[in-house]
Amino acid sequence: MSIKIALLGFGTVASGVPFLLKENGDKIRQAAQTELEVAKVLVKDDAEKERLLAAGNDFHFVTNVDEILNDDDIAIVVELMGRIEPAKTFISRALEAGKHVVTANKDLLAVHGTELIELAQKNGVALYYEAAVAGGIPILRTLVNSLASDKITRVLGVVNGTSNFMMTKMVDEGWSYDEALAEAQRLGFAESDPTNDVDGIDAAYKMVILSQFAFGMNVKFEEVDHKGIRNITPEDVAVAQELGYVVKLVGSIEETPSGITAEVTPTFLPKTHPLASVNGVMNAVFVESIGIGESMYYGPGAGQKPTATSVVADIARIARRLQEGTIGKAFNEYSRPVELAQPEDIKSSYYFAIFTPDEKGQALKIVDIFTQANVSLKQILQQEAKDNQARLVIITHSIDKNQFDKVSADLSAVADFELLNTFKVLGE
Amino acid sequence: MSIKIALLGFGTVASGVPFLLKENGDKIRQAAQTELEVAKVLVKDDAEKERLLAAGNDFHFVTNVDEILNDDDIAIVVELMGRIEPAKTFISRALEAGKHVVTANKDLLAVHGTELIELAQKNGVALYYEAAVAGGIPILRTLVNSLASDKITRVLGVVNGTSNFMMTKMVDEGWSYDEALAEAQRLGFAESDPTNDVDGIDAAYKMVILSQFAFGMNVKFEEVDHKGIRNITPEDVAVAQELGYVVKLVGSIEETPSGITAEVTPTFLPKTHPLASVNGVMNAVFVESIGIGESMYYGPGAGQKPTATSVVADIARIARRLQEGTIGKAFNEYSRPVELAQPEDIKSSYYFAIFTPDEKGQALKIVDIFTQANVSLKQILQQEAKDNQARLVIITHSIDKNQFDKVSADLSAVADFELLNTFKVLGE
Repeated sequence: MSIKIALLGFGTVASGVPFLLKENGDKIRQAAQTELEVAKVLVKDDAEKERLLAAGNDFHFVTNVDEILNDDDIAIVVELMGRIEPAKTFISRALEAGKHVVTANKDLLAVHGTELIELAQKNGVALYYEAAVAGGIPILRTLVNSLASDKITRVLGVVNGTSNFMMTKMVDEGWSYDEALAEAQRLGFAESDPTNDVDGIDAAYKMVILSQFAFGMNVKFEEVDHKGIRNITPEDVAVAQELGYVVKLVGSIEETPSGITAEVTPTFLPKTHPLASVNGVMNAVFVESIGIGESMYYGPGAGQKPTATSVVADIARIARRLQEGTIGKAFNEYSRPVELAQPEDIKSSYYFAIFTPDEKGQALKIVDIFTQANVSLKQILQQEAKDNQARLVIITHSIDKNQFDKVSADLSAVADFELLNTFKVLGE
Repeated sequence: MSIKIALLGFGTVASGVPFLLKENGDKIRQAAQTELEVAKVLVKDDAEKERLLAAGNDFHFVTNVDEILNDDDIAIVVELMGRIEPAKTFISRALEAGKHVVTANKDLLAVHGTELIELAQKNGVALYYEAAVAGGIPILRTLVNSLASDKITRVLGVVNGTSNFMMTKMVDEGWSYDEALAEAQRLGFAESDPTNDVDGIDAAYKMVILSQFAFGMNVKFEEVDHKGIRNITPEDVAVAQELGYVVKLVGSIEETPSGITAEVTPTFLPKTHPLASVNGVMNAVFVESIGIGESMYYGPGAGQKPTATSVVADIARIARRLQEGTIGKAFNEYSRPVELAQPEDIKSSYYFAIFTPDEKGQALKIVDIFTQANVSLKQILQQEAKDNQARLVIITHSIDKNQFDKVSADLSAVADFELLNTFKVLGE
């Protein structure tokens, strides 16, 4: 007996699925305890179908999703089209038709995950999405299985390959943001509109999903503060290096006494931190917990074969559970009521870069603003003046969100000052 | 209803089990879908029992294992005594009594794993041992679940914390082997007889287990070549740094056209390799595969809470499977007939350090020996002479095991030469 699969979409990742089923057939069969067969593939239109057939792809291509949803022989639907619609409608209809669904669609899961998960539960079918966070890194299932016995206190993730590629160029080669973006676009890592990657939106989607698996809490996308890498200058990068840090775009989720807080922001990582050496398009998720202490899961965050590997692992798991008769449990069962942290519990050191007129007494004025907010300073760096403007860099000791907001507002309120950048600083 | 557990031994790791069950009770209960209760604890004798009770440990301590094996209420036996006997006898009897077993005993599993696994299968019970390889890193279950869809081509592991702590001191601080060992012993990382750690035996045990999970092959301990760190000198470490490498004790398992080969040996890792920044007592397993490409799993290799976390994850998994009615499947089901690689398929670059008399023509003689074996050289470094002895360092291009053995034998056969050290070099 074999279990029949349908693919929705036949782009890069989707074509990796039959590759793996063929190249690694024996092992997958042993894991799934059955043959897995790609029975139908949904494509956009006849033109795409003809093109794929002409290119030698030997699949049963269909252009109407009903041919899949109404086919009782198909047990598993694999959605790899991306974006919200029509993916959302197709997945919903597949779940309602009693089909198990595997998807890598993080945007969809971050925004509509709760309702889709409920729909899957209601219909007693599986909805798995290991590939949705950090493509090739088996982080979600590891959180579910192996860290079930552990209590996680903080998750830090370098989970956007495009921005990490750019930051690596900016740090290692001293490139500007624009140079790094141009190269990322040339290599196909960044889209012509890079907003999702460089503004931290993609990473914030992943934090939404990770908050469910690591903390059992359904944080909403809107509740994840996100700030991207657009404004990072070579000066910021140089200061970081001088002080022993590497700048990266880091997503974090942390449990505080009052609840959890999730955020994506450029972060100064101490050079010795394991995340600091995660370079190029590679991703990593760093987990702090009361049991293991510190662990890290490193691998490619995207790409055809890595993503397809996670997708096929999900498919094999569903096949296995179908035969064991244990299908239908939620991918992630860890669930607690959502509690968001109070601002006074959200603490970090921060980096402030400020332009001031190159006049006597300006630094004192700035320090006074920090002192008013009861913020103690760890490091102050006055950088050489240019055009009568001095650049002042301040790294604070640990402060809370209220203090951070007050200092930021007070600095912005002084017409003479320009608050260039604020980043988190890890390590205190 | 609760599921009752018995602990065999109450040392450091064992006492971490009730700690986690208490500190993380809600989440573990959700994962296990039942209460887990430590019902009995086996200790050595009445003296230990009295000591533990006096110290405020509130458990039902027993000194006779029969009180556990004959207790029908106990479903899961957790062996944390270490060493071969009496652990082997107790585990065998527990399996025969229809009890599920969790253990962290890598020595036992590496040497007698096959027979214990068969015994578990025969009795339809589980034998789980996530903690046996790289303590706190959930590598075994990840290989079973998430990498089931992938074909692994090579595994590289920094899996002995003691030797990695020592190597980190030797590399970062320039310490000698003896200085590093003394510090490791002072801190309790190394035993008074450090043989298992520093000679690569412990790492070789872990390669035996990893070869089963990553390659489905039951390689025997005797089939894992192992060489330790005793002979590494500050000169070796300095040369490595000069050439852009970091020296670490690395275990490797690799699939070649003729079969697999497993080995533990000091290895030059390029500074940019993810394993190169795994420092101190931390462990990491680096996996190369056709799907994911490169992934790494990083965490503490030992310690009370990390190891207990893996043990409790195993316990929760058993509890879960008991309720699903899916218990009794092997921890690792991936299995192929063992095929060991032929020497001509085992390839690597190598580092040779050789003492020669400080006389004209010696270097030429040495190069001739390499040429005779058809070995081409990548780098030659003649280091300053001392006491009429010169130190010659050679790094080869990729050569096979036959070539390596011939060169080593030919060099040793010349009375004038002293072959100081040979290490693997990664990166070609």
